[in-house]
Amino acid sequence: MTFLRCIGCGRDHPLQEIRYECEACSNLLEVTHDLDALKRQRDGASWRRLFDSRLGAASGIHQSGVWRYHELILPDLPADRVVTRPEGNTNLYRSARLERESGTASVHIKHEGENPTLSFKDRGMTAGVSFARFIGVDLVACASTGDTSAAMAAYAAQAEGMRGVVVLPRGKISLEQLSQPIASGALTVSLPADFDTCIRLLREVCRRRPVYLLNSVNPVRIEGQKSIAYETAQQLGWQPPDWVVVPVGNAGNISAIGKGFFDLHALGLIERVPRLLGAQPEAAAPLARAHREGYRERVRVKAGETAATAIRIGDPVSYDKAVAAVRRSNGAFLSATEPEIMDAKALVDATGIYICPNSATAVAGFLKARRDGIIGAGDRVVIVATAHGCKFSQATIDYHGGRQDGVVPARANRIIELDADAGALERFLSSPAAATSGKVAP
Amino acid sequence: MTFLRCIGCGRDHPLQEIRYECEACSNLLEVTHDLDALKRQRDGASWRRLFDSRLGAASGIHQSGVWRYHELILPDLPADRVVTRPEGNTNLYRSARLERESGTASVHIKHEGENPTLSFKDRGMTAGVSFARFIGVDLVACASTGDTSAAMAAYAAQAEGMRGVVVLPRGKISLEQLSQPIASGALTVSLPADFDTCIRLLREVCRRRPVYLLNSVNPVRIEGQKSIAYETAQQLGWQPPDWVVVPVGNAGNISAIGKGFFDLHALGLIERVPRLLGAQPEAAAPLARAHREGYRERVRVKAGETAATAIRIGDPVSYDKAVAAVRRSNGAFLSATEPEIMDAKALVDATGIYICPNSATAVAGFLKARRDGIIGAGDRVVIVATAHGCKFSQATIDYHGGRQDGVVPARANRIIELDADAGALERFLSSPAAATSGKVAP
Repeated sequence: MTFLRCIGCGRDHPLQEIRYECEACSNLLEVTHDLDALKRQRDGASWRRLFDSRLGAASGIHQSGVWRYHELILPDLPADRVVTRPEGNTNLYRSARLERESGTASVHIKHEGENPTLSFKDRGMTAGVSFARFIGVDLVACASTGDTSAAMAAYAAQAEGMRGVVVLPRGKISLEQLSQPIASGALTVSLPADFDTCIRLLREVCRRRPVYLLNSVNPVRIEGQKSIAYETAQQLGWQPPDWVVVPVGNAGNISAIGKGFFDLHALGLIERVPRLLGAQPEAAAPLARAHREGYRERVRVKAGETAATAIRIGDPVSYDKAVAAVRRSNGAFLSATEPEIMDAKALVDATGIYICPNSATAVAGFLKARRDGIIGAGDRVVIVATAHGCKFSQATIDYHGGRQDGVVPARANRIIELDADAGALERFLSSPAAATSGKVAP
Repeated sequence: MTFLRCIGCGRDHPLQEIRYECEACSNLLEVTHDLDALKRQRDGASWRRLFDSRLGAASGIHQSGVWRYHELILPDLPADRVVTRPEGNTNLYRSARLERESGTASVHIKHEGENPTLSFKDRGMTAGVSFARFIGVDLVACASTGDTSAAMAAYAAQAEGMRGVVVLPRGKISLEQLSQPIASGALTVSLPADFDTCIRLLREVCRRRPVYLLNSVNPVRIEGQKSIAYETAQQLGWQPPDWVVVPVGNAGNISAIGKGFFDLHALGLIERVPRLLGAQPEAAAPLARAHREGYRERVRVKAGETAATAIRIGDPVSYDKAVAAVRRSNGAFLSATEPEIMDAKALVDATGIYICPNSATAVAGFLKARRDGIIGAGDRVVIVATAHGCKFSQATIDYHGGRQDGVVPARANRIIELDADAGALERFLSSPAAATSGKVAP
């Protein structure tokens, strides 16, 4: 039996109620599984065999890197209600370059930008939209401007009879951010208001009408995102790393990944839980400050400018969940500066793995934690990249061209201008400059 | 024994020579496998079982949707020389919407935009860059401005000791097109010249120095791209469709897909070869004209403006290969207008599957072939989408906003502007307008 438990007072609510906060104390809710029943169903080795047997499934929902773990995600949701692309099955890249750069035994990048809409949000949305369909809702909504609206709109479009609604602050959205929900046929509503007002108005409407809210307060999305932990563990032969590093904005994803590893441990699929490292840009680092201050009180900050726009959040919605997960894992939060973030992005990009500035915050956080000795030389590390670099072309070009405010690029790959002459091109390719320019060893 | 055979005079050359055209007659070369030896090795059922047994491989090159078929791609290339992400394993989406729209029994979209660098070019580049490494070349080059340079730069970056060189016409490239090779650390050389001059100068250099040219004249890339046919057939349980529809520019991809299906048929993995339909934008449709004229003579045109920029080619490099493959399959070439292309894109995008204008040319071509009765109501059809919609945000936004020259959008999803008021939002969501605006049934 799966239900919604308040993370504050512990009160339980039925899973199938449309509800985002506790009736009694207004805290966040968490989908809670009957782990004892799951333990009685199979032991850890048997769960591992079951999930391994589904790798390479030729049809059905087990093709998905989320629904391969159906019993641990939303066990009561029938397979024929699931809306799936399939998603997940993203590459886990070993990065020899980051191992050498940092002097660390093993470093992998889990590239969630390889999902269908190019971010990890697809994992949460396949769960959220499937659940909406299951409980008979035909309108789903969110007030995001980036990856969330892209994923929600795509999954709503795929679900027969479902409609997606995206609420946007007028004039605050770039054309690129608009393109995905508009393409997916979502009802795209623009309000003369800031983002906070948009989400507040949308929540008001969702309280009064059967519109299912898929912003990050939604507890069902977290269940889909947990699969990042499951899939990573499975790709490593169920030998989890020592550390998992995650970029942190609204803090839903690190909460989900933590929950995923705690599930696996409780059910005996893995022997220990990795330590979680949450990385924030210095411009918006409330959790990093809370960590330094021993979590004495809830920290809220006013977010400053950062290239990591998706995690530019001063007062994270899932603050409490994230703190609980990180502390329970004996982990940490830290922050990285803008040059650290963009230099880290250039380092990883130059190995052919193209990541976004948000993901690069995790890479920079890893490098800092390694320098500070938080992460040790013998440790095995997985860094979660959350979106594809192709969603952030301008930031990439600005960095390499030296046009990013406040950043002197340490790893710029500059364009070489030559005459239109084969001899000139040949001479240049033979020159020492050609051998080194912009080059980062893999 | 695998070698390079001239498609004109049939002369053979050793595979390991760096060579892009026939020594005798300057025609294109084709990698030619010893199909008789492969037949003696296994029968069709045994090949199918072998490839099926590799689905879901947890490690090694068989994880790749290209190298799963190693024996049919580059059998003499040792596994430890292969540079792979892995790539491939892209979704084959069944499109109920296109089936209803066209009245066709079965329509699937093979979404090659779900490759790591977001286009089908990754399949050719894993072959091309691996082969370059095998023969000891450390400089690989191309003169492309779009998906080709993105893929080449990423694979060169991944190969230890390899360097990628991208040659670009100065001032003709958008920032977005630049972002991927610069990010990947490719040596990015800009010349004051047009594209044709860039490729001519680069070919001159490649004749004189050990620089391996990875433009579409390269016959090894085709071997990787063949895997689109293999993977599609495997995903359909080795029951190939009646038609495979492919967007055609330089015509390398339709040649490769044709070669892939002919291989499978020769080796007994499939019982018949699907008919190939090549789709071109009307603004650049030499092959569609050649088809109408019965292939009497080679057609060259001056390419006009089209949103399908990747296939805006008036004189395709792989013209002869493509004509041979399409005629042998009893297929056809046709063309689609700009409104047909962009309306087809909107139709598919609105089902949550985000494609580029080049891919949409194939969708429009399919719809036209179905209307004209070339494709029948009972046929099973696979449409190949070549790149992700996220590489073409501006084209998407321009279409839906009615700002694309010469196109009145039939399926525009317009932004709804409301007051910042929960009541207004609630009333709008209850209105008939909300139920239909921008909506396309899945």
